[in-house]
Amino acid sequence: MKKQTYAVIGSGALGGLYGAMLARAGHDVHFLLHRDYGHVSTQGLTIESIWGDFHLPNVLAHPSADTIPPVDVTIVALKTTQNHLLVDLLPPPTREGGVVFVLQNGLDVEQQSVEVVGKERVFGGCCFLCSNKIGPGHIRHIDFGKIVFGQYGEISDVMTDKGKRICAELNAAEVDAQFADDLAVVRWRKLMWNIPFNGLSVVLNASTKSLMDNVEACQLSDAIIREVHAAAAACGVEVPDAAIEITLENTRKMKPYDSSMRLDYLNKRPMEVEAILGNPLRVAQTFGHEMPRVEMLYQQLKYLDACNANL
Amino acid sequence: MKKQTYAVIGSGALGGLYGAMLARAGHDVHFLLHRDYGHVSTQGLTIESIWGDFHLPNVLAHPSADTIPPVDVTIVALKTTQNHLLVDLLPPPTREGGVVFVLQNGLDVEQQSVEVVGKERVFGGCCFLCSNKIGPGHIRHIDFGKIVFGQYGEISDVMTDKGKRICAELNAAEVDAQFADDLAVVRWRKLMWNIPFNGLSVVLNASTKSLMDNVEACQLSDAIIREVHAAAAACGVEVPDAAIEITLENTRKMKPYDSSMRLDYLNKRPMEVEAILGNPLRVAQTFGHEMPRVEMLYQQLKYLDACNANL
Repeated sequence: MKKQTYAVIGSGALGGLYGAMLARAGHDVHFLLHRDYGHVSTQGLTIESIWGDFHLPNVLAHPSADTIPPVDVTIVALKTTQNHLLVDLLPPPTREGGVVFVLQNGLDVEQQSVEVVGKERVFGGCCFLCSNKIGPGHIRHIDFGKIVFGQYGEISDVMTDKGKRICAELNAAEVDAQFADDLAVVRWRKLMWNIPFNGLSVVLNASTKSLMDNVEACQLSDAIIREVHAAAAACGVEVPDAAIEITLENTRKMKPYDSSMRLDYLNKRPMEVEAILGNPLRVAQTFGHEMPRVEMLYQQLKYLDACNANL
Repeated sequence: MKKQTYAVIGSGALGGLYGAMLARAGHDVHFLLHRDYGHVSTQGLTIESIWGDFHLPNVLAHPSADTIPPVDVTIVALKTTQNHLLVDLLPPPTREGGVVFVLQNGLDVEQQSVEVVGKERVFGGCCFLCSNKIGPGHIRHIDFGKIVFGQYGEISDVMTDKGKRICAELNAAEVDAQFADDLAVVRWRKLMWNIPFNGLSVVLNASTKSLMDNVEACQLSDAIIREVHAAAAACGVEVPDAAIEITLENTRKMKPYDSSMRLDYLNKRPMEVEAILGNPLRVAQTFGHEMPRVEMLYQQLKYLDACNANL
């Protein structure tokens, strides 16, 4: 079977890593680049990874989506704060019927992709990944890395086959990927980490390690995780109870890492507050379910985001 | 009637101001001083106040409680984080039956004074005061200033008369003071300001003005105020509903001011987290009442306090 072709919209710490691994495995991978275009089009991509370092000298780099040809799979790896751009960025690579694979944190982040290609052509996925872009075209992947993804719309045989094929290609490219039956479970489970640890790392100016080393911060993290878990259940999404303890345990074992939201905050970039906290709060509210701690964290982050924007 | 004699334990922005006003009015006021003893004993106290500036050249200054003679009224104006010292500081001035007047923020902050003199000899009070110590023996009082106080133990005629007399002496000294029937109402009402605005000003590194100018921070402040109001009711303390809106409105009108907790945090001093948040949380819990937002704020402040202590 012919290898599928890919496009990566947003070639940063996440899109750059996975796209480079697919390219190394022999796929045509078209990268949309912004600031790094000049560097990557001439010097390629450099990956330092716990899965093995490599350099990709020749990269199909694009400074604009308009030059990207139609591909089988378009990976969306922008920050969700950029999702309003997708209405212009997705049509070129998806115009001959390719699917969109939204690899972003948060809930209902597929919405803008659905508006372009329809929900029957959209996968969503979460990455459990510690990776940073440390220079132009230079990515350092320091821990974890697993992708879990699933169908955003109604489950269909065509999309199930397609998802399994993407998963097999990722695995063949040495990416730890898993195709899941229920995207909602995947997303809420990831929110159980992202909401407390992205949020508190910003509000308390803390690494995950310093949060886990403090009694009260640890109790608060636990309470927020339980609040998210209960909200998922109220929305009809059954995340196994064991995920609560696993989330804490994984965080305790994690290498010291600045969460993506903390890096955005420290670099005065917009934070993904709406995707990661606002959308889950609003979805839970439609089910009549309140999350007082998550709401408080949302309000605190909105305040800090506004302070950054006003500087 | 002979003027009562006073001692002030903790002669900072609060104790220094009220003590100086009583001394100016002709009372013997004995000030316990620590770092400022040398300055104040030779140069006196300088007060800049919205109620009128004055200098008090001759001050009954003490570097240790042991030299303070027995007085009629001992004002406790330490930080509550120093209350463990009261077991040694209170016996000298109270040894001939004088009363203790605990002018501290928080709830159940009278406990350490009660252990020394018994609850039948204790008044508690709150100050609605914006005042800072800006140099040795130099206090700047910029806004508000009212003291509202009441009996800590069972209401008794002797203590009611005593309280009225203290109140009259404060008023004669041009201090805005009010003797209240119900100390619990006074304390919870003050907590409705202290918990949100001391707490959030630290966690969000914010002035009261910047909190009130932001939609989400304002909503969060309102939610916390309502949580404290509801907890008071659950504990059998009926604070009028109107206090909710008045608290927000007063904060909107307040001159830009760094809350005492924020100043403590920025100066890496211990914060009054237990008196202002911990004690109310625990009291509410004994009534089976939870305050999730206040608890979260408590946990966040405990984390930040520990970070400061570990520096």
